[in-house]
Amino acid sequence: MDLAFMKTHVSVDCVIFGFDKDQLYVLLVRRNTLGDSGKSLKLPGSLIYQPEDANEAASRVLNELTGIRKMKLKQFKTFTSPMRTADNDDVNWLEYEYHNKIDRLITIAYLSLCKITRKLNVVSKYATVEWRPVNQLPKMPFDHNQIVEESLREIRNWVEYEPDTLFELLPAKFTITEFRLLYEAIYNRNYDARNFHKKMAQIKFILPLDEYQQNVKHRAARYYKFDRVTYNKQRIGM
Amino acid sequence: MDLAFMKTHVSVDCVIFGFDKDQLYVLLVRRNTLGDSGKSLKLPGSLIYQPEDANEAASRVLNELTGIRKMKLKQFKTFTSPMRTADNDDVNWLEYEYHNKIDRLITIAYLSLCKITRKLNVVSKYATVEWRPVNQLPKMPFDHNQIVEESLREIRNWVEYEPDTLFELLPAKFTITEFRLLYEAIYNRNYDARNFHKKMAQIKFILPLDEYQQNVKHRAARYYKFDRVTYNKQRIGM
Repeated sequence: MDLAFMKTHVSVDCVIFGFDKDQLYVLLVRRNTLGDSGKSLKLPGSLIYQPEDANEAASRVLNELTGIRKMKLKQFKTFTSPMRTADNDDVNWLEYEYHNKIDRLITIAYLSLCKITRKLNVVSKYATVEWRPVNQLPKMPFDHNQIVEESLREIRNWVEYEPDTLFELLPAKFTITEFRLLYEAIYNRNYDARNFHKKMAQIKFILPLDEYQQNVKHRAARYYKFDRVTYNKQRIGM
Repeated sequence: MDLAFMKTHVSVDCVIFGFDKDQLYVLLVRRNTLGDSGKSLKLPGSLIYQPEDANEAASRVLNELTGIRKMKLKQFKTFTSPMRTADNDDVNWLEYEYHNKIDRLITIAYLSLCKITRKLNVVSKYATVEWRPVNQLPKMPFDHNQIVEESLREIRNWVEYEPDTLFELLPAKFTITEFRLLYEAIYNRNYDARNFHKKMAQIKFILPLDEYQQNVKHRAARYYKFDRVTYNKQRIGM
């Protein structure tokens, strides 16, 4: 058996998560349609240019989408199935978009977290950039649905060993209820409100502020903030 | 600026860890030298064949090396720097070995753990397969030294969220001292023997056996074993 070795184009795709009220959202872009079968929303991504490495390509994609130069980006998995380009619509779009003949395509997936309130300063080629709830995603091209699914597992893992990651998703001041809803969205389960509150009160890097919610019908909740100095001290001691 | 998109060969490289007494070892192979500059020991790996995905290629490499069909393999990072092929010796070897013109090469790195006592049933093209202590590695081709370094960080992370991983490295029956030495090797620090012992005694999935070391000069230590049933029950409850 004398098999040929794969030579292929390589792309990056970015799963950018945001959080609002009680849901996780993913940032999607709309690709220029070519009469394709409705799968026009997709993860933002790009083929990698000749002189770039994958991190540089992913930073470029994020920067074009958000205007942010420095954003925490985590490479989490490379998707290599030969079936990625099984759908002709996807291949046609790729070849039209990139003026390259594409037979096979592997992609390096990145994960990033972003405050959903951040103003997006789009300078990319995409007409539309939109936040979509992670549990109501449309059918997307290639294996983008699978990539999002695996990125959710990766977020949980990330949060376990770098809990400060969570605060990238919250506003600078947050209530314990907001924090609990974020946990519930990430772990896809409910937490008892009273127990959760007790636990959080014991965490030294979550600081109570002397500020309370205003103009709310229920009892105004206290605001908290993440204290990086205390957090870093604890981490070193571990 | 009209830049070309990267089209490239893709390989897998496997970092296989073993543990003996008080050290972590990595399984290396010796490549056929071409008068190269002494960097003949390297991580086992292979270009990916056309019909394979990366997992299949990594399993093939491991199987050829060890004779094992099913081995826990974890994809942990893809290395994409254009500088990977900066050394002509490395490129010459690649082209000689694979009869392909290679300009750039990205590699998908895998992590695996293996009992060092396992008999290696080598059916690979490599003449030599050897265990080398992780902190005394030779200078290796490409970025293989960097890959091992990053895989050590990844092992720690892996152990944090899937502690059962550790027991892949230990014999079926082990003493708490052996277990501590493994921890010390992975985290590259010392643990107080008495405290460590106390902590381990509280972990329900580490079961004391009614067996003790034999023929030792010091006081014979008790053997323990990993209890997967209890472990799995605890995980679900988390």
